[in-house]
Amino acid sequence: MDPCRQRPQHVGILALELYVPPLKVLQADLEAHDGVPGKYTIGYGQSALAVCSAREDATSMALTALAHLLRKCGVLPERVGRLDVGSESGNDGAKSIKSSLMVLFDDSSDVEGGDHKGACYAGTAALLSAVDWVSGEGWDGRFAAVVLTDVALYAEPAARATGGAGAVAILVGPDAPLPLHRATVASHCQNVYDWFKPCGPLPQVNGNLSVSAYLDSLRTCCQRFCKKARAQLSGDIDSIDFACLHHPYNKLVQKGAEQLAHLLPALLTAPGADADHAAETISQFDDVEPKAKRVKGTFYDDRVACSTRLGRESGNMFTASLYACLASVIAAHGSELEGKSVLMYSFGSGSMSSCFLIKARAPKDDRWSLSSIATRVCA
Amino acid sequence: MDPCRQRPQHVGILALELYVPPLKVLQADLEAHDGVPGKYTIGYGQSALAVCSAREDATSMALTALAHLLRKCGVLPERVGRLDVGSESGNDGAKSIKSSLMVLFDDSSDVEGGDHKGACYAGTAALLSAVDWVSGEGWDGRFAAVVLTDVALYAEPAARATGGAGAVAILVGPDAPLPLHRATVASHCQNVYDWFKPCGPLPQVNGNLSVSAYLDSLRTCCQRFCKKARAQLSGDIDSIDFACLHHPYNKLVQKGAEQLAHLLPALLTAPGADADHAAETISQFDDVEPKAKRVKGTFYDDRVACSTRLGRESGNMFTASLYACLASVIAAHGSELEGKSVLMYSFGSGSMSSCFLIKARAPKDDRWSLSSIATRVCA
Repeated sequence: MDPCRQRPQHVGILALELYVPPLKVLQADLEAHDGVPGKYTIGYGQSALAVCSAREDATSMALTALAHLLRKCGVLPERVGRLDVGSESGNDGAKSIKSSLMVLFDDSSDVEGGDHKGACYAGTAALLSAVDWVSGEGWDGRFAAVVLTDVALYAEPAARATGGAGAVAILVGPDAPLPLHRATVASHCQNVYDWFKPCGPLPQVNGNLSVSAYLDSLRTCCQRFCKKARAQLSGDIDSIDFACLHHPYNKLVQKGAEQLAHLLPALLTAPGADADHAAETISQFDDVEPKAKRVKGTFYDDRVACSTRLGRESGNMFTASLYACLASVIAAHGSELEGKSVLMYSFGSGSMSSCFLIKARAPKDDRWSLSSIATRVCA
Repeated sequence: MDPCRQRPQHVGILALELYVPPLKVLQADLEAHDGVPGKYTIGYGQSALAVCSAREDATSMALTALAHLLRKCGVLPERVGRLDVGSESGNDGAKSIKSSLMVLFDDSSDVEGGDHKGACYAGTAALLSAVDWVSGEGWDGRFAAVVLTDVALYAEPAARATGGAGAVAILVGPDAPLPLHRATVASHCQNVYDWFKPCGPLPQVNGNLSVSAYLDSLRTCCQRFCKKARAQLSGDIDSIDFACLHHPYNKLVQKGAEQLAHLLPALLTAPGADADHAAETISQFDDVEPKAKRVKGTFYDDRVACSTRLGRESGNMFTASLYACLASVIAAHGSELEGKSVLMYSFGSGSMSSCFLIKARAPKDDRWSLSSIATRVCA
């Protein structure tokens, strides 16, 4: 192996396909049924949630999303050398969803990768592993595919409104319109029992702990991200144009956006010595729970709101949620995204979280243009 | 990012730590209890199986193995930038075992990676992802750690003898004494219900289907491996010195070794055009189930038997099983392994499988020498 063989450049998302079950429950109807007017639409900020029919599950949604992705992109299964799946709603404790997806691959079975597990973060774990495969020594020139699929179910009536369902399939390769700046990935992992599934498909939830884990992890990841971004991308990043935050329900994303609005300007422009000071200031500020009246700031409206459409209309998709946010941004802006920076925040209870940067660009191959992705996502 | 920045070289296994519960059941005692003399010791080729005490589980074994690895190697947790876990015996349907292992990391929480799922193959999926992280653009110079941990339980009395328990922790980095030839990884993935866990921790098993999936996958992976090895390592590989095969129970490994003994010489030395012919010949040959009398050939005795000690004495460790085989080879040969080639065969029901090559070498840093690994494994 030539040690100086050129690495593939701009490795990231070439194309993206979304599947959401057509069956939906309006949050207004659910409020009326539960006798809690305004709680889900205004309190959670949600408009509807997708529900699987009796003939759908995480595997069937994954099959649909992946089959559509390959067909729409004109990619033959034999051109896929790696398949990673992120999910926490698989039907089996040992057999991978990936093995079930192999029915789409006929005789082309030399396909690396597997299932990733870690609550909602598993989608990002799957994507990063696929990106690393393309960048690494094992890459054989084929595409990687990533499928994130989940059915979000809750036992408690109050939590049921934060359910949802959906799958996202992603094609990964070099010369991508949405490349991951891999060296900016900044993570925070801790041992916390905020949300877990000790018995069957319905989670045990400590709501307050989960919200604080989400917001605290965002702050920690953001600090580390800004430090890495300043070191890795000096001069190349003067602003974040859009931010996609893992979207369990809209009001939590609004709270996260408020943190970002304060943290990012201070951390991205400050010299290294000031970063801790900025973080401390924010930390004191955040000891007071952000008030609803302060949430609707310019940062959320201008840079985050466009990413929340699918999350508000379809509910939580767990591992697929963050990438449904990215799909919403692409659908809203298409080729106008070129040159724009998208900050991604992935969170999974338990907990694991990462911030990283995607900077949209025009690929050499028109097949992967931003407008092509937008057309397919909107179809 | 400089596109020609030199990739780290010889990325692979720097060190390896094994934990097996001290509680064991002798197969001879189990045979006496079940009234089936010789079935487990001679029929399965097993001598004992490890059993978790009431205060142990997959997570506690993982904690022990990882803590011992870091302490014995003198690696501070803050020097670990990625942690991947392979298991199919986690106690939770969403929360990752990795998040529980973070209690060893104190404030050093910027650690990528997560849990991998896919029956016994998840261990190899975890290792390959860690290797790709070190080889990829996201690597920040720190070590990756991989922990494989499983408790193998069966409901049926006849299958109980193929249980076991154990964990392996692996330190991954460049300049490794056991580097993975990443470009030789040859896989075979298919959708098969040979062994799965639809309900709780005890698997549903179709024994005959699982054995044929194991042996058929070995043949397919071996063909693909030899093709890649000839293309990637021309002149560098004229023989396989040792072979480690996923070890559910010893007799299955003996059957696999017999296949390898016939396939490898034909495929490694043949020109490309002859590979299919050789495979066909073997394929016809293998339609007859290998007889026990033919199993004890030179290939198994000389190149495989030394890898089976831990598997025979401790039973199946699912994801950790293959790497317990590698530990057995290291324990048996120590620094004499230098320059030797080890063929690895990983299999997980469902199913996913890979063959790949490890070629042992003397690292520049004595801390990672083969004899150091051997000393630690034997301690």
